[in-house]
Amino acid sequence: MSDAPQFERVAIIGIGLIGSSLAHATRANGLARHIAGHDSDPDIRRRSEALGLVDSMHDDVGDAVAGADLVIAATPVGACGAVALAIRDHLAPGAIVTDVGSVKGAVIDAMAPHMPEGVHLVPGHPVAGTEHSGPEAGFAELFRDRFAILTPPPGANEDAVARLVAFWRALGSDVEIMDAEHHDRVLAITSHLPHLIAYTIVETASDLETELEAKSRDDDVVTTREVIKYSAGGFRDFTRIAASDPTMWRDVFLLNKDAVLEMLGRFTEDLTALQRAIRHDDGDALFELFTRTRAIRRGVIEAGQAGRFQYTENGDSDD
Amino acid sequence: MSDAPQFERVAIIGIGLIGSSLAHATRANGLARHIAGHDSDPDIRRRSEALGLVDSMHDDVGDAVAGADLVIAATPVGACGAVALAIRDHLAPGAIVTDVGSVKGAVIDAMAPHMPEGVHLVPGHPVAGTEHSGPEAGFAELFRDRFAILTPPPGANEDAVARLVAFWRALGSDVEIMDAEHHDRVLAITSHLPHLIAYTIVETASDLETELEAKSRDDDVVTTREVIKYSAGGFRDFTRIAASDPTMWRDVFLLNKDAVLEMLGRFTEDLTALQRAIRHDDGDALFELFTRTRAIRRGVIEAGQAGRFQYTENGDSDD
Repeated sequence: MSDAPQFERVAIIGIGLIGSSLAHATRANGLARHIAGHDSDPDIRRRSEALGLVDSMHDDVGDAVAGADLVIAATPVGACGAVALAIRDHLAPGAIVTDVGSVKGAVIDAMAPHMPEGVHLVPGHPVAGTEHSGPEAGFAELFRDRFAILTPPPGANEDAVARLVAFWRALGSDVEIMDAEHHDRVLAITSHLPHLIAYTIVETASDLETELEAKSRDDDVVTTREVIKYSAGGFRDFTRIAASDPTMWRDVFLLNKDAVLEMLGRFTEDLTALQRAIRHDDGDALFELFTRTRAIRRGVIEAGQAGRFQYTENGDSDD
Repeated sequence: MSDAPQFERVAIIGIGLIGSSLAHATRANGLARHIAGHDSDPDIRRRSEALGLVDSMHDDVGDAVAGADLVIAATPVGACGAVALAIRDHLAPGAIVTDVGSVKGAVIDAMAPHMPEGVHLVPGHPVAGTEHSGPEAGFAELFRDRFAILTPPPGANEDAVARLVAFWRALGSDVEIMDAEHHDRVLAITSHLPHLIAYTIVETASDLETELEAKSRDDDVVTTREVIKYSAGGFRDFTRIAASDPTMWRDVFLLNKDAVLEMLGRFTEDLTALQRAIRHDDGDALFELFTRTRAIRRGVIEAGQAGRFQYTENGDSDD
């Protein structure tokens, strides 16, 4: 490998958790001679500048991407079409344009029509994140030992794909290539449905107090305070997932609607069957299911994707 | 406080994660002059003896509880009735009998009728655990900074309750007293429903490959291997919860049926509303909900129940 940076100028559009982590990681690994940034929110631009995240921050997105050989849209997926439209006339010939969204089919549909001849669209998705948002949340190691999935459209420029693969590998990621439709189905079950369910149960729990109070059943009200207090029994893990960025997740569900609704339908069927087993005291069915799901956890651990969750405030193992 | 142990003889019945942790913690804190143990499984008894968990291990549960001033049933809740029946004729006068189950109403119904005159039944529930099971899984710090809920029946002996409160406090727990029915409703939403949902989504994910293969739709199969591989996007957290002990959880759902079905009904209503919002592209409804659920997470963090989850294999923050 040469010591020269992989890219002359990397432009990062959207400075949230992922955008700011990309800025940190690109700089830490010396992957760009210059890092340009833009965010549509003036306050985010100001905070990003105060943090020194990029070499140049631009009020105008066109100025940010001018001369860039790598442009990364790190906005919520719903904004990718508008970004493509705004940058199309400012892109340098041969530039690689990518994104980081959790939905890929809709991103291609929204961005591809705006790409000028000679610009290479190679959508991507780092399967990494935290429940924190904003430019202050980023850190250089976010992508290390995580998967980055690239979904180049049929006929994509091979050299552009190879350069983007090298970029993500330099950030520490394992890179996988797959087609956009398959990506969206895989992520619907591994990420989108889990988030949907976590949001729902947190809603259900937080509505208990209000509903019961409305009924004046003050003999046995489960209060929000109690739900929070005893959350270590399992609920807590869901609150973490349900604290993720609202705009990002609204866009994901709207733009991966078909796959999400399909997986949700399957989930609801399975949940109904389990509900029926409980109602009819079918302990054998419950035991059989709970034994089967254990095996999946072993698979996750063996694949090195589990980590050992710890409650680091007091060093306890978590549950 | 005196340096004398709080109890002469503590008998622990059922040497799983909780039973073995109680043995470690009781010994580490010098709370008993003698720790006696029993498990109905000869293999567990053998392994517990090899680990040196208790001072005396007994093939017969009656021998374990004989002379004990504190008897702790640390079995799955479905076994508590049988334990009560087996120990009733061996309990010392004035003994305190407690348990650690995640359901309290059913435990009282099962155990109270068997308690001899002069023996004090004070059911309890440490809101603590891990996804690991068995005598090797226990550790002394499991209960530290966690809640232990006691549900003494009306008219319970005050001195017995006070001694049990002191015991749990000595293990590092925050002790709360509430009635059994309320406990069961609080835990239905904070623990039982989250586990039920985690078991279900893991089932849904693991059935994808089989179903799709059966349809010979090999053009877009989402395999179990892929589900595991990309589990860092959210699914992973559910697999951990769904790896919990099958017998324990079968019993919980069967014995807290009414509260679990009520909470499940509320959850299903909320999920259906969310499904409808996705189908009808109602982004405002999604955004409003996802913003609201964030506030609950802040509550969990402020209550000191969140911890900072970390992916300790590589030091990354988790998502």
